[in-house]
Amino acid sequence: MSSEFHPPARILMGPGPCNVDPRVMLALAKPLLGHLDPDFIRIMHQVQDLLRSVFVTRNPLTIPISGTGTAGMEAAFVNVVEPGDRVLICVNGFFGERMVEIAGRCGAEVKRLEGVWGKSFEPAEVEKELKAFRPRVLALVHAETSTGVLQPLEDFPSILKKFPETLLLVDTVTSLGGHPVKVDEWGIDVCYSGTQKCLSCPPGLAPITFSPRAVEKIKNRSRKVQSFYLDMDTLGRYWGSEITYHHTAPVSMNYALLEALRIIQEEGLDRRFERHRRNHLALAAGIEAMGLKMFVEPQSRLWSLNTIAIPEGIDDAKLRKSLLEEYNLEIGGGLGPLKGKIWRVGLMGYNSNERNVLFFLTVLEQALLAQGYEVPRGVGASAARNFYSKNKPG
Amino acid sequence: MSSEFHPPARILMGPGPCNVDPRVMLALAKPLLGHLDPDFIRIMHQVQDLLRSVFVTRNPLTIPISGTGTAGMEAAFVNVVEPGDRVLICVNGFFGERMVEIAGRCGAEVKRLEGVWGKSFEPAEVEKELKAFRPRVLALVHAETSTGVLQPLEDFPSILKKFPETLLLVDTVTSLGGHPVKVDEWGIDVCYSGTQKCLSCPPGLAPITFSPRAVEKIKNRSRKVQSFYLDMDTLGRYWGSEITYHHTAPVSMNYALLEALRIIQEEGLDRRFERHRRNHLALAAGIEAMGLKMFVEPQSRLWSLNTIAIPEGIDDAKLRKSLLEEYNLEIGGGLGPLKGKIWRVGLMGYNSNERNVLFFLTVLEQALLAQGYEVPRGVGASAARNFYSKNKPG
Repeated sequence: MSSEFHPPARILMGPGPCNVDPRVMLALAKPLLGHLDPDFIRIMHQVQDLLRSVFVTRNPLTIPISGTGTAGMEAAFVNVVEPGDRVLICVNGFFGERMVEIAGRCGAEVKRLEGVWGKSFEPAEVEKELKAFRPRVLALVHAETSTGVLQPLEDFPSILKKFPETLLLVDTVTSLGGHPVKVDEWGIDVCYSGTQKCLSCPPGLAPITFSPRAVEKIKNRSRKVQSFYLDMDTLGRYWGSEITYHHTAPVSMNYALLEALRIIQEEGLDRRFERHRRNHLALAAGIEAMGLKMFVEPQSRLWSLNTIAIPEGIDDAKLRKSLLEEYNLEIGGGLGPLKGKIWRVGLMGYNSNERNVLFFLTVLEQALLAQGYEVPRGVGASAARNFYSKNKPG
Repeated sequence: MSSEFHPPARILMGPGPCNVDPRVMLALAKPLLGHLDPDFIRIMHQVQDLLRSVFVTRNPLTIPISGTGTAGMEAAFVNVVEPGDRVLICVNGFFGERMVEIAGRCGAEVKRLEGVWGKSFEPAEVEKELKAFRPRVLALVHAETSTGVLQPLEDFPSILKKFPETLLLVDTVTSLGGHPVKVDEWGIDVCYSGTQKCLSCPPGLAPITFSPRAVEKIKNRSRKVQSFYLDMDTLGRYWGSEITYHHTAPVSMNYALLEALRIIQEEGLDRRFERHRRNHLALAAGIEAMGLKMFVEPQSRLWSLNTIAIPEGIDDAKLRKSLLEEYNLEIGGGLGPLKGKIWRVGLMGYNSNERNVLFFLTVLEQALLAQGYEVPRGVGASAARNFYSKNKPG
């Protein structure tokens, strides 16, 4: 017989999933409804309304895809890309690479704009490529989970005005709910995320939104979307006013998402972003006080995911294992070329708080001392505390 | 502000989702783990082992897809079908139709074997088509959720022996955990299901298993699987011994599935099937005693999903609405050509019990009387009670 299982109560400060508010856990256990029940339809519509608020959009076609963030990425590409379409992808990390992979599987003519892992793109270099390549879709990652880099998007609307045939497709998996994401203002045509990062909901759904221009492109496709499961035309009819059966929505996960979005609404987006910013800055202050280096330049740092360069002589796997086993604390290692070179420390949603910052700095110090790294005791946590006392929330 | 939501406590006797054991609801709320946490990996492997038990297979490649049943169907086709491959699909209901749609989007050369909605296929007619068409894949639905028909599969191994190039792909969304499904014995190469039916877990995952022959076909593909999210080659590496990151697994849903599978293991498959059979027979006895007709011939009836012909003069929508509003009871209506013609009454997993059978027959009687249908009071429930007392569980 399979024995009862009791997952340990970890503090999840990796790249996600992160811990969620107990209210969200309880929402998961609410009574199940049928996926066509009028009471569930009401819940679906509330979820859609609240998603529009966090995406800051009026796009009617805004839904949670019934899959994780990667399903959101795939839904974005399969719907707006047709075989032969030119797609320009800005690659400065693991998830840009994944976009190339997925766009390729859609039969796109993919052009990569190569960036540096750890740096954001200059709008001017993107504009140059747009001019040369004239793509149907420009795709980039707002918050690169593999490097901790934020890609500023404020300058893109004025650039893209010059390329009216190009749709802007943006990955906000690690920013939505933690950093400002302004879909309409920034002229984003397709924007997707995941639930398990700054929205602070368990993994399993991928919020996505399509602008009217993107919907137009979908409507004018010459061939069907290669994925039936992710076909926004039929999916949109289930989530729209027709409520035609498409697939059985993950009911409990939608409850959790609704509760997570209600919590965001109660806090308010601006207060929430400021909280993420403040805790990130405190953590960075502590890290630097310990003589460690943040991997990313200050102006490009994500607030939700802090990347720290691993000092020479430190055994990455051993250190993370000790945090997990001794303190029930999960942090992330590097992906691909950054394996063994950085730590990825999430301060996402519910988890972005002073207690976690101080706890992390304290136990990181312990773990570094255990490996012979010299650091004055308490210097990191003390710098963070200083930061907090000088920077009270507004 | 969005207000707190309290889903009503429905009795879900439609085509799924169905109610689940409270143990499963509580499992959803267990502490979250990272998707690469050694404790979560252990849980993944337990889920895989228990899935092999319910599929009755030794296939190493047996996992829950991170999506609902339709994602399972899509995962089945996109992996083993390449553009130009011949695929023979037996269509006798809505989900056979959906297979045609999905196989078409994979670029398959699809041949439909037309059946009758409400009847199963004779192995001989399938054999004839196999001879004529020589497909790479034969696809059929074991339990047609749209009609309540069970397709017997016992005769297929001896037929398919004559067609060694043909893979057998079977939909067991509404049978797995309620009817015997013997993947290895029946020579099934690709078999998928959903969690929200007889496994009695909320919707959100799609268990799937691939035979070594199917894995061989995947390995020898000349081009990549068109879906990255559902690519079994990379997915298998996450769920296999390598544990390479592919996507963030829906952690809470996997807890729920593990608990649901543990409950199945505790009950035992044979006892569980017998329970489904017994409650189905009691329900059918009650229905027929009320002068109503089951839609399907006795030998082809699903135990998990009972289809009842709607008597003339009865307003389908009004009746189902009254059950929902007055008794918190959900039953399903017909799909496609059967809309307004049948009811679909699920007795799945946790919900397959005497209480639900008696309750349903009693309130159906009330609702029919309210619409002027003449039926002697209590005759349905009484016939079911009689059946139970004469057929004690072994």
